[in-house]
Amino acid sequence: MDCDLIIANGTVLTMVPGAAPIPAGAVAVRGTDIVAVGPARDLIAAAPGARVIDAGGGLILPGFVNTHMHLAMSLMRGFADDLPLMTWLEKHIWPAERTLMTADTVALGTRLAAAESLKAGVTCICDMYFHAPRVIDTLTEIGLRGVVAESLIDHPTPSCPTPEVALTRQRELLERYADHPLCVPAVAPHSPYSVCAANLVKEAELADEFGAPFVTHLAETRWEVEKITAEKGMTPVAYLADLGVLSERTVAAHCVHVTPDDLDILAEFEVGVASNPVSNLKLGSGVAPVPQMVERGLKVGFGTDGAASNNTLDLLRDVQLAALVYKGVAADPTCMPARTIAELLTIGGARVLGLADKVGSLEPGKRADVVCIGVDSPHAVPVFEPYAHLVYAARAADVRHVVVDGRVLVRDGELETLDEAALLAEARQATNGLVERLKG
Amino acid sequence: MDCDLIIANGTVLTMVPGAAPIPAGAVAVRGTDIVAVGPARDLIAAAPGARVIDAGGGLILPGFVNTHMHLAMSLMRGFADDLPLMTWLEKHIWPAERTLMTADTVALGTRLAAAESLKAGVTCICDMYFHAPRVIDTLTEIGLRGVVAESLIDHPTPSCPTPEVALTRQRELLERYADHPLCVPAVAPHSPYSVCAANLVKEAELADEFGAPFVTHLAETRWEVEKITAEKGMTPVAYLADLGVLSERTVAAHCVHVTPDDLDILAEFEVGVASNPVSNLKLGSGVAPVPQMVERGLKVGFGTDGAASNNTLDLLRDVQLAALVYKGVAADPTCMPARTIAELLTIGGARVLGLADKVGSLEPGKRADVVCIGVDSPHAVPVFEPYAHLVYAARAADVRHVVVDGRVLVRDGELETLDEAALLAEARQATNGLVERLKG
Repeated sequence: MDCDLIIANGTVLTMVPGAAPIPAGAVAVRGTDIVAVGPARDLIAAAPGARVIDAGGGLILPGFVNTHMHLAMSLMRGFADDLPLMTWLEKHIWPAERTLMTADTVALGTRLAAAESLKAGVTCICDMYFHAPRVIDTLTEIGLRGVVAESLIDHPTPSCPTPEVALTRQRELLERYADHPLCVPAVAPHSPYSVCAANLVKEAELADEFGAPFVTHLAETRWEVEKITAEKGMTPVAYLADLGVLSERTVAAHCVHVTPDDLDILAEFEVGVASNPVSNLKLGSGVAPVPQMVERGLKVGFGTDGAASNNTLDLLRDVQLAALVYKGVAADPTCMPARTIAELLTIGGARVLGLADKVGSLEPGKRADVVCIGVDSPHAVPVFEPYAHLVYAARAADVRHVVVDGRVLVRDGELETLDEAALLAEARQATNGLVERLKG
Repeated sequence: MDCDLIIANGTVLTMVPGAAPIPAGAVAVRGTDIVAVGPARDLIAAAPGARVIDAGGGLILPGFVNTHMHLAMSLMRGFADDLPLMTWLEKHIWPAERTLMTADTVALGTRLAAAESLKAGVTCICDMYFHAPRVIDTLTEIGLRGVVAESLIDHPTPSCPTPEVALTRQRELLERYADHPLCVPAVAPHSPYSVCAANLVKEAELADEFGAPFVTHLAETRWEVEKITAEKGMTPVAYLADLGVLSERTVAAHCVHVTPDDLDILAEFEVGVASNPVSNLKLGSGVAPVPQMVERGLKVGFGTDGAASNNTLDLLRDVQLAALVYKGVAADPTCMPARTIAELLTIGGARVLGLADKVGSLEPGKRADVVCIGVDSPHAVPVFEPYAHLVYAARAADVRHVVVDGRVLVRDGELETLDEAALLAEARQATNGLVERLKG
């Protein structure tokens, strides 16, 4: 077998629907692609010259897919907490962003977020922020996969003084990064409440022209639903459908306050839902009806949202929390069992981002995005069932190795493509005194 | 100043009500006790001969108090998931316990749980299980503080064939471990639904005779409330009050399904509530009204419950999750702010266990139970506000040093009083094939 890297010595969870775990399994990689998945002994025997990464008897599975985040907001972690969404946005986050978020700062925050994400087993992200070219260039250097969108809001943003400028920048982004091997450029109108109908339509036209993802916040808060319903006479989901902007390339973040009719609309247009359970709880927005979405066959994945409203990018932790909350809300411990949650964390997220042909499961022909989870700590013994272990006991600190596009980005828990100590020092310096600066 | 250990170089959160964080602070320890808390420079200058533990610029705070757990059930982590409470108990947990839980196995499971707890910053636990003398002896060796109860159920338990035997064993426990420096012996009638009225009263009499904690499960599920209400004509809380068994030494685990009248009763008798947010969600039991309990001035702390229904003993993770859930349930992001949650995690838990005169805050005269949380990882940069950092971003893997009763039990993230590798191997061996053995 022609392969140059074998990730071996673990229970392989391929996340292929219906497939059983492969004990003492391995994943063989050639270049950027998976060429075989099976028993480690067979794969190693078939490729005696390949480098072997040892999973140490833990779990080997597809990298996690974070379907909604604002990478550079890592620099605003813990900047303003215990506040309602609109106060938080208008009084704290937006003013701080206008002061802080130059292109260089966005690049720095992106590196910090990428470091945290990789160490938490995330191999693919969807970023919705500003200065998107710098984000893509930064992710390319680091080696992290993603959908990266330039945002449009009707007021000035850190990168664009007007929505017209944002549209121009978005077009440039889509042209410049077409066919990029690691990142998919995208457009992101911020939300139905912060972007007018005309601009929403322009955004959809631009996305359609390039076949690009259309990323937006949707039905996040009761406030949004009430505002849009009062102004448009329909729910935010129905409003976007009415404008003709929804499609199978739409990535709709949140969808907390959705009616059964809204779910029908999301299903009809094959919209992908990026649910952000921690951010939605922390901002008091509520709990998205993810079990109902799954039941209706919607494309659903999980996201952390930005670190300013979470306050980490530990997707596994967030997904574990969501799994528990669904059971509690439904008063049903059989709701959303571990395997279902593990699917949303991986292949489900890939479907939301339109990348399920490339990532989200371990299959020959797909890109080699792989994470190894160790089971050599007191909280990880015993392991009776691998999916339950992943969803109820494993944690980010157990992530041993992370491979993206066939490249080893985390080895033995350490970042291979970032100087972590230097990065943390730089991030501390950039944010030092931020609260005081904004007040002064 | 006469002291032999100084924990220095961090922001000290004393958890004394109203006290401000102490930047560049330290805690000075002599023997088992705290002798001073203040600026590191001053304390180090005043005690030049003391050993110094370096908190590395992170947080220094009281150890976490886990108010409800079943230590040895760590061996049943992930043994049966995604099941309703009574099915889980009657079909899986109780039969497995009868096969598995000898005194030696309980000691092994206690060591595994203690290892996990210490590495997660927990310095004081409340254990409600079987073979309590072995639990206390094991915790004493390791150095972990706790309230340790022998359980009584009306059916045979792993340690006692009848409730009469359990009563005898409990009396022996209370006599043998009176005035133990680290562990408080206690009695634990399992619940109002599994212990008859006569035995509940005998348990209360025994606890009263020794001034011992009376630990029980209470109002955990809707099923329990319906059953007790049908049989006794009142809620489980009212029923225990009516029996005369509640007191300020009662530690009531769960209290998920409680009425406003129940809360009045709990307040009247000064009952301590041990809330287990993750276990309650995972078993579909619901969300305890902890914000309402805090508002009414009840003693409230957090617990993980056993690892079989969680599936970790990572109290910090559970408390972070609870903080988010309260906001989500209340649709109010200002509900239960970070400082309040941090208090319940430490001094609140100590109050529940009747140990607030000894632990739960960093004050001269209290025992030296101290945890140091590092801030040198991507998810921990920047830190704008220490309580928010603790409650929304810190994680068990950040725990650097843990001191209990003046003794360093975790140093640089490694256990000092347990051989972790040997322990994990032993735990794996003891549980290997357990599922098959139980079926066969």
